[in-house]
Amino acid sequence: MTNSKYDELKFFFEPESVAVIGASRHPLKFGHFLLKNLVDLGFKGKIHAVNPNADQVLGLKAYPRIGLIEGKVDLAIIIVPASKVPQVMRDCSDKHVRGAVICSSGFRETGQKGQILEEEVLTIAKKAGMRVIGPNTTGILNTSNSFTTSFAPLPKWKKGNVAFVAQTGLFAAAAFWWIVSKQPFGISKIVGLGNKCDVDDAEILEYLAEDEETKVIAIYMEGVKDGRRLFEVFKKVTKKKPIIILKSGRTPAGMKASMSHTGSMAVKDEIFDAVCKQTGVIRVSGDLEELLDITKAFALQPLPNGNRVAVITVSGAGGVMTADECTKQGLELAPLSDETLNRIRVNMPAWAAISNPVDIEPLFEVVGPEDSIRIALNAALQDQNVDSAIVLFIAVPRFIPIFDMKIILRRIMEGHYKPKPVVTHLIGFKETVDLYTTQLEEESIPVYSSVERCAKALGSLWKYMQYQMRDK
Amino acid sequence: MTNSKYDELKFFFEPESVAVIGASRHPLKFGHFLLKNLVDLGFKGKIHAVNPNADQVLGLKAYPRIGLIEGKVDLAIIIVPASKVPQVMRDCSDKHVRGAVICSSGFRETGQKGQILEEEVLTIAKKAGMRVIGPNTTGILNTSNSFTTSFAPLPKWKKGNVAFVAQTGLFAAAAFWWIVSKQPFGISKIVGLGNKCDVDDAEILEYLAEDEETKVIAIYMEGVKDGRRLFEVFKKVTKKKPIIILKSGRTPAGMKASMSHTGSMAVKDEIFDAVCKQTGVIRVSGDLEELLDITKAFALQPLPNGNRVAVITVSGAGGVMTADECTKQGLELAPLSDETLNRIRVNMPAWAAISNPVDIEPLFEVVGPEDSIRIALNAALQDQNVDSAIVLFIAVPRFIPIFDMKIILRRIMEGHYKPKPVVTHLIGFKETVDLYTTQLEEESIPVYSSVERCAKALGSLWKYMQYQMRDK
Repeated sequence: MTNSKYDELKFFFEPESVAVIGASRHPLKFGHFLLKNLVDLGFKGKIHAVNPNADQVLGLKAYPRIGLIEGKVDLAIIIVPASKVPQVMRDCSDKHVRGAVICSSGFRETGQKGQILEEEVLTIAKKAGMRVIGPNTTGILNTSNSFTTSFAPLPKWKKGNVAFVAQTGLFAAAAFWWIVSKQPFGISKIVGLGNKCDVDDAEILEYLAEDEETKVIAIYMEGVKDGRRLFEVFKKVTKKKPIIILKSGRTPAGMKASMSHTGSMAVKDEIFDAVCKQTGVIRVSGDLEELLDITKAFALQPLPNGNRVAVITVSGAGGVMTADECTKQGLELAPLSDETLNRIRVNMPAWAAISNPVDIEPLFEVVGPEDSIRIALNAALQDQNVDSAIVLFIAVPRFIPIFDMKIILRRIMEGHYKPKPVVTHLIGFKETVDLYTTQLEEESIPVYSSVERCAKALGSLWKYMQYQMRDK
Repeated sequence: MTNSKYDELKFFFEPESVAVIGASRHPLKFGHFLLKNLVDLGFKGKIHAVNPNADQVLGLKAYPRIGLIEGKVDLAIIIVPASKVPQVMRDCSDKHVRGAVICSSGFRETGQKGQILEEEVLTIAKKAGMRVIGPNTTGILNTSNSFTTSFAPLPKWKKGNVAFVAQTGLFAAAAFWWIVSKQPFGISKIVGLGNKCDVDDAEILEYLAEDEETKVIAIYMEGVKDGRRLFEVFKKVTKKKPIIILKSGRTPAGMKASMSHTGSMAVKDEIFDAVCKQTGVIRVSGDLEELLDITKAFALQPLPNGNRVAVITVSGAGGVMTADECTKQGLELAPLSDETLNRIRVNMPAWAAISNPVDIEPLFEVVGPEDSIRIALNAALQDQNVDSAIVLFIAVPRFIPIFDMKIILRRIMEGHYKPKPVVTHLIGFKETVDLYTTQLEEESIPVYSSVERCAKALGSLWKYMQYQMRDK
């Protein structure tokens, strides 16, 4: 028997048999939503409903207590009022359940009384050798086997390589909808950890490090339970895959708000920052938007081998701003080779000067937009002095004809033996910008809403790559 | 005769008679686009076409030279090859034209030869007492009289209170499309200054300060011509209306790129920063996205009387992040009065704790989303301890019923004797988020794509207000 964290926590994500304790017939109760999610998704494991006041819930036989279920139960999903949770946990213990996801709220986050209740629950679990996720959360979603413990309605998802871990359920649910309806990357796992009375970020990170379906881990944290352990886990996990982290409670006001939200323990922000830097964790300075921006780059693009960026731009102003933003992110404008400059120059009008940023507006007048992008980006990506590229495009209807971005990019990307990351930014007529965005992101080229975000994305890939190189 | 900058430059925006020199019959030439724009927009002033090789362009009589036009011409719009511009300028001088917008490129931005040409043009203008905007630009758009010198296709615009000034034409055009198709605010004037051989940012700012249609000035700058004068103008203009500035060329790489883009003179970034702080100019740290974000707040919302923010949130995590971001922007979480807390508490379930951020999720369970927002935001905005509010909302279909944001907000805003700024952030299902965004922004409530942006927007309003207060 191996004793890895993966094997230890696997039953939370791939249980063979689950019991929903608090499964409700009432269509507006969380206990109804939860069971309905599981049933509707077509989860293939055994699903049991536990409800002392019903014979059936959603067509499933309902048991008054978990103890009455025939056969083993791996995982209990608990969604009863907080005061009833200790008794339910004792029942689970008697049934030799391996662990529980406690969705109910009303614990540490509500004050001292709730804290005592939470401690009681934990004591029962410890004594029985049960593991607990929560309380106060939506828990788990595993996209590969359609298993969930969430009572929030779930969107139609796209399977993918990103695991998203959040402290709280509602935020995890909303973020999940946001990701699914807005982001080009797919999801492997969603984990809402809630109050983290037992299983915490560190353990989940260890699990996800070994999860073959997960390539990138994005995580929202408020508090830190065991800093030393988290440090060790960060170090171990980032050797295998990138961790992008959004840590709030940075300021006294944020810490105070966090305290009443999840009862999180505060950690000095400078210390947490230093920990991230030392362990190769990418910490975002902004909020969810930036977390997803950076995650998108890791999910869709390769890592760069250096910090030299080629900027291909239709707008001179965009080129200047990008040069600034690259510098801010520790990136350099690549010194393009003479061969590259010549490959672009032969197509340019005589008066045009070429350097990096490559202003392709003069090329437009000669060869049109499609070939302008193709010629310049091709030349740049094949240049040994170039490690990555930022493409800035402008969509002004009737001025620049609409074309198929997808075809151009596919042709360019096929031509490169060594993959280099490419990110883009577009402005202009929203409808055209949206069209190009879809086309680009379907080809796994991330589009950002500003050049600042482009540079931050590349800068983060480079930061992670530097850590990998340093470590070798 | 008054001698204000407004009167001096007014003919650029409200000419009674213009000549398009280089008006072309060829449907793909800039000189064609330009004249077509003017004709299609229905500009009521006299429009003359100048083209030595045509009798008519777009149904207008074409003159071989400007000198042959009967009657006076206020403004020449020049779109001929750079080498021909000096002769055209001499012709304009003979015709006693008051000034010219030179759209042609091929001047200082292309190197030494171009610089000499530009100096020649300026010498002719100075001698004749003519004013020049450009070269290398799309020039002017005045939405109130449908006058333009732009050769870029123009979107259907919304008249409004924001003037947008940019150094370069293509960027101004793309940004204009971007604003019109994405932003809830309307535009009063667009100015692309190009190489600024004569009229510069300082003069345009003075003009816009007196322009009654302009309430907010957003400006993109690369270089500074006369720092001392700009300082004085900044000081003067910000007394009347806010200036939001995006200044690139911050880093050595950016300065170099700017040099080959518009031949702009570099200025030390720290000095420019200090100038903005001293003169009450709001300088954005990001790029166009942030410039428009901040501009939107000034265009749609009143200024706050203090830095105390009420945060109304459906997501606890959002509340924590907002507390952090407010602190970063010099804002404080408002200490809500007992009356306010009670007004919210009476509707809450007993177990819920209330503070600021106000987590309205528990309210949802009792009174539903519409009344939750109404009760909490109303109470907060009527609280004397509150200067502004941030509302965070989550759109999770089937979980939170869809409702009309517009009606709620209209009802709330009507209830307030003293207007206080309100900004919002939404996440969740994109379709619902987009719906709410439209509803909110139609009621002049700005929606931002992150809590960071909400806080930056309020922070900027507060910064400007502080400057106004200090100055009194």
